[in-house]
Amino acid sequence: MSEFWSAIVTELTPYVPGEQPNDPNIIKLNTNENPYGPSPAALAAIRAEAQDTLRLYPDPQALELKQALADAHGLQTAQVFVGNGSDEVLAHVFRGLLKHDKPILFPDISYSFYPVYCGLYEIPFDVIALNENFEIDLVDYQRGNGGIIFPNPNAPTGLSVTREALEDLLKQNRASVVVVDEAYSAFAEDSFVDLIDRYENLLIVQTLSKSHALAGLRVGFAFANPILIEALERIKNSFNSYPLDRLAIAGAIAAIEDQDYFARIRDRVIETRTRAIEALSDLDFAVLPSQTNFIFVTHPRSGAAEIAHALRERSIVVRHFNHPRTENYLRITIGTDREIDALIFALKEILPS
Amino acid sequence: MSEFWSAIVTELTPYVPGEQPNDPNIIKLNTNENPYGPSPAALAAIRAEAQDTLRLYPDPQALELKQALADAHGLQTAQVFVGNGSDEVLAHVFRGLLKHDKPILFPDISYSFYPVYCGLYEIPFDVIALNENFEIDLVDYQRGNGGIIFPNPNAPTGLSVTREALEDLLKQNRASVVVVDEAYSAFAEDSFVDLIDRYENLLIVQTLSKSHALAGLRVGFAFANPILIEALERIKNSFNSYPLDRLAIAGAIAAIEDQDYFARIRDRVIETRTRAIEALSDLDFAVLPSQTNFIFVTHPRSGAAEIAHALRERSIVVRHFNHPRTENYLRITIGTDREIDALIFALKEILPS
Repeated sequence: MSEFWSAIVTELTPYVPGEQPNDPNIIKLNTNENPYGPSPAALAAIRAEAQDTLRLYPDPQALELKQALADAHGLQTAQVFVGNGSDEVLAHVFRGLLKHDKPILFPDISYSFYPVYCGLYEIPFDVIALNENFEIDLVDYQRGNGGIIFPNPNAPTGLSVTREALEDLLKQNRASVVVVDEAYSAFAEDSFVDLIDRYENLLIVQTLSKSHALAGLRVGFAFANPILIEALERIKNSFNSYPLDRLAIAGAIAAIEDQDYFARIRDRVIETRTRAIEALSDLDFAVLPSQTNFIFVTHPRSGAAEIAHALRERSIVVRHFNHPRTENYLRITIGTDREIDALIFALKEILPS
Repeated sequence: MSEFWSAIVTELTPYVPGEQPNDPNIIKLNTNENPYGPSPAALAAIRAEAQDTLRLYPDPQALELKQALADAHGLQTAQVFVGNGSDEVLAHVFRGLLKHDKPILFPDISYSFYPVYCGLYEIPFDVIALNENFEIDLVDYQRGNGGIIFPNPNAPTGLSVTREALEDLLKQNRASVVVVDEAYSAFAEDSFVDLIDRYENLLIVQTLSKSHALAGLRVGFAFANPILIEALERIKNSFNSYPLDRLAIAGAIAAIEDQDYFARIRDRVIETRTRAIEALSDLDFAVLPSQTNFIFVTHPRSGAAEIAHALRERSIVVRHFNHPRTENYLRITIGTDREIDALIFALKEILPS
């Protein structure tokens, strides 16, 4: 620390993202990237935008991108906010909508960036334990709060709440915002974006990172009623007028409009997920019923940290979290069929027979 | 406002960026973009990066970009911070290094985002008036403070402080950080990056937007001793792990390495600036001696707002600020020779003879 630092800097516990190894021979199943490339239309749009006009600032409102998202979801552009990845969108949500006197609520096992935002913005929070099946029970969130946030499907568990449970919560919890972080909803049976027209206290966050294979492009968004969106715009316009560069805007629009490609790669991931669950179950893993592009697994006879280490020695990277309740679990991204075959082959070597 | 908003949202007065008209026939001299396109090598690097690997997250440290910047300036990578445009870098500087009990100091006529950041982060500030020649007199900043920030050259005046005046301040002001915002230093006689090895309280912010004709790519950076950089990294890693997308990283590296192209377009802008100053002086404008890619001008017989309006009717956009001390001034970006010729032609029509 240093006398030059603002007081908050010393207090922070920054988020630690998953490893990004440079070696292209590594099978990377640790950060939930989509194994298939982005839409060829998105790549073509980016190449076309790599031209003289990059000397000009982007549209600070990114209105064409908002329009593409609004069209895709049957919304108005005033119901859409866009940012530099869903992490930036979430940061503005915490600052603009979740900082109140009462503590906000989120699950004990969830996206580990949430408590980091609370540290950055000095937001009080209470964590609510998942039930014994690692499910979010929204009845547990019906208490005084400054806001509620949870991923749906949740990460790293991969499990979803029901539409009925969410609607019950939205009706009971009228005084604060309920944020549903749908980073993985493309791989789930349900998305709740349609509910924003009926609940003024609901805000949905999404991203192109996983669903559209564009983690490298950094585009995230939020959907909500225009009053909630206005809070985010006011924060954003007090922070950075142009969070999305021209290439990201062009690529995102093309990716969103290429709905056939999106559906095709989503279906392939879901098919491979089914295969992976079967194969790992055959190896005696307990596998939670995933609604995402990853699976959360534990083995009755082998430690998760040891398995992760042995896989790493075989150039396969999976994610292990040091949380007391889940220290014996691994989160494994659904890769290509071939990558999952390599995983199964390695696990057969590693596990005691 | 809304009960859902965090208290700060109602208090904010967001920054208003210059107009970004869509009409390609407009001569855009209002937001200090470089009239020449980006380096062809940067465009080629972006196109090459528009490929399958966009499905993967970028390097959260953007280490290759830091290395390119360190190499260009003879620094270590631990002395370099990178962000999503210099506006994001500045936001983290305000949060991580300028929020203290004592007020920070900046000029009364300067980048109008500074008070906006103070509003967002609840940072006390005092503005210090420019002297009667619109110069920053750094002797006026030698008083108790929580930090000092000013652009050098200043915007919208285009004027620079001397190296001697800055070093005097750095020696006197040992207890807080002095931030020099060098958004325009590429067009000036001097940059102060070399001083960071000698003054632990100095932080320099730069951007590719103007100097490298990449306003559309959103890449900014800071140079300082590793202790100051660490504060920014801690804030950044508590906000957004990946502020720079893969395309921005690739394009920025190629642009920084193409030093010949950079020097060529910089020299052209400076030559056109000399011509523009002469031509506007011939029309009786008072023109401040610019060290930037814009000029700040006033006319003894015609109001600035009226001139801006008449230019707009002729499809030429310049920037007029409603600040009491400068309400009769216009900030005009140095465009191509042809654009400046069109400006002069229009002004001859507009001004009373």
